[in-house]
Order: sequence, then C-alpha cells, then structure tokens
Amino acid sequence: MPTLAEERGPGRPRCQDTRQSILRAAYELFDEGEDQPFTIEAVARRSGAAKTTIYRWWPTKGALATEAFLTIAEKRSAFPETGSAIAGLRIQLKALARLFRGRTGRLVAGIIAEAQSDPEARKAFIEGYLKPRRATAARIIQRGMAGGELRPGLDVETVCDALYGPLYLRLMVRDNPGDDAAVDRLVDTVLEGIKAPASRR
Amino acid sequence: MPTLAEERGPGRPRCQDTRQSILRAAYELFDEGEDQPFTIEAVARRSGAAKTTIYRWWPTKGALATEAFLTIAEKRSAFPETGSAIAGLRIQLKALARLFRGRTGRLVAGIIAEAQSDPEARKAFIEGYLKPRRATAARIIQRGMAGGELRPGLDVETVCDALYGPLYLRLMVRDNPGDDAAVDRLVDTVLEGIKAPASRR
Repeated sequence: MPTLAEERGPGRPRCQDTRQSILRAAYELFDEGEDQPFTIEAVARRSGAAKTTIYRWWPTKGALATEAFLTIAEKRSAFPETGSAIAGLRIQLKALARLFRGRTGRLVAGIIAEAQSDPEARKAFIEGYLKPRRATAARIIQRGMAGGELRPGLDVETVCDALYGPLYLRLMVRDNPGDDAAVDRLVDTVLEGIKAPASRR
Repeated sequence: MPTLAEERGPGRPRCQDTRQSILRAAYELFDEGEDQPFTIEAVARRSGAAKTTIYRWWPTKGALATEAFLTIAEKRSAFPETGSAIAGLRIQLKALARLFRGRTGRLVAGIIAEAQSDPEARKAFIEGYLKPRRATAARIIQRGMAGGELRPGLDVETVCDALYGPLYLRLMVRDNPGDDAAVDRLVDTVLEGIKAPASRR
C-alpha cells in the first residue's frame, strides 16, 4: 500500500507520513536503551498511530525494529565530517562499539545471522546500513590521506576492514564488542602498525 | 551411548572408534571441495559405517558437518610453528581465506549465525574452533615480538582482532572472504600501520 500511495503523485501521502513517524518512534525507543521497553504498545503511544496500523505493516516487533534500524540508523550516525581524521575515526568506532554493546548490537547480530540464509536480509543490511557507513568512513580516510595525517596510497577498503572487522568479530563471535579502551588499543595498533621499527624499510 | 561406553573402562570402545572414523570421513569429504558431494551416503561409503548408524548419532548432514568441523578442523590447521612470524601469519590467513571461500565458509557462517540464538552452538564454536586457533595465532605473534620482527609490547588480542576480524567481516557481511591479494593488502596495512610517517613520534 505505501508503494501504491507513493506512485499516486507528488507530495507525501498521509500513510507514508504515518509509516515514517512509526519508524522514527520505533528507532528512538529502541535507541533510548534497555530500560525503555520496546513494545508495539510503546511505539503506538509515542507515534500516535493505532496498534492495528502498526501490526498491518510489521507482523512482529522484530520486523519493525529491523526496518527502523535500517532506514534511520545511518542518518543519525555520529560521524564528524570535519577536524582530525584520526580523531574522527576514534569517535565513530567508539560510538559503534557502544551501539553494539546494547540491544542494537543484538539486533545487528540477529540481522547478520538472518542474512546468512536470507538474501533479502543480506541485501537490506548491506545497502541500508553497511555501504553508506563505509562510504562515510572512506571519505574520512581519504581526508586523512589528503591532509597528511594518514599514509598516502592506502587501500581504503582494507583500512575499513582492519578497523571495523574487529568490532563485528567481537559482536558476532567473541564475548563482547569491546569498551572505549579496546577501541583505542585497536586504533593505536592499526595506526602505528605491528612491524618492529628496525625492520621497516 | 558413546558417553556410557567411555565410562566402561580403559581402552577405546568400539563405538567410539566408529564415531571417530565417521567424523574423520565426513571432515575429509567436506574438505575435499565442492565437486565432492557431501551426503550421508558418501560418508557411509568412506567410513565403512552403516547409514543407520550415522543417522542415529547425527540427524542431519548439517549436524554431522558441524561436529566434524569443530572436532577435526583445528587439529589440521595449517599454522607453521617455525620460521618468520610474519610469513607464518600470511600463510595462515591465506589458508583461512581459502577455507572461507568454499563450503567450509558457508558452514562456519551458518554456525556463527546459529550461535547468535543458541548459546550451546556459540560455546562449541568458541571453545572448539576459535580459542585454539587464537592461542596458536597468539604464540606466533609472541614469537614475532621476541624475535624482533614485530613491535615489542603489542596487545596480542588486538593484533589477532585486526588480522582475523576482516576475514570474518568479509565472510559474514561482505560479498566474499577475499583472495590472496586481499590478504596481502590486509597484512601489509596492519604491518606498516596507516599513520603518515611524518606524524609518527
């Protein structure tokens, strides 16, 4: 139905607005933390939409949380676009680790798990979340190279993998996504490299 | 039943031997690659065990593949324990990326996906696969520090994360686990670091 409405012409049809305000309310509730129960009831209260309307579009609160996360999280990512590139990477990685430590982390882990057997879920996660975030990370790395903070000629994808891979590994496989100190150790290690200075050319 | 048999006394009871030879046959078949169909039939043929025996212990071929992988993969890991630590890391990461590119990669991705909602699967993967591999990787990194190839005082866990995290990220989330060239780019990046030489202290 929202697709039909969108095709109807210019302007924002009313049901599209309702959809957006439900997603926004869901995302906010979800994002406010563990002490805020995430229920369809609570989303209805905050968005002003009827529970029946919400259930018509999302059969479960998991489906609602997933779509809210994939459509809204990116727009609110805490990625500073100015200043030191290295400081910016540190801030962004710490924000992501903090996100991963809470229920958003469990949501993301669930989406990635789902993505192993569901190509649609995989595509939604890659297109809706991963790619836009990586594009922003790539810009900050490029800015760091241009500004002389980072080594010129770095392979940007590889740098992203080395910085973000550990957070996903820790989220999915290890016991926890790491605290601020773990992120600092990671950034320092990748910044300075692991080769002994004596053996550098 | 195998547990009962084990308690019966010294020596290796017959059904334990059968179990082991089924697991070994399963692992070998699985490991031989995509052109070797992985079926209970084929495992029965290779191990000499009856299909009914196999089904009694493992209800599905997925369950058999998982146990075979978790009990045998580690013992056959291609981790050279001598020579250059850096060369050793490169060899091991390439072997892992190669493994991840094939059906073992899909098996591992499936186990990790399962682990998000099943604490038993999580524990089996961490204890049976991840921890022993990381212990070996840690030894090679420590040897590299002791031998002057790697910077002294590195945080070994962080170095493991930076090197292995990207392979898991690529396996679970990106389109492919990467080829040999991608592993070389990763190792080079982590070895040399990403900070511009001018800004190093």
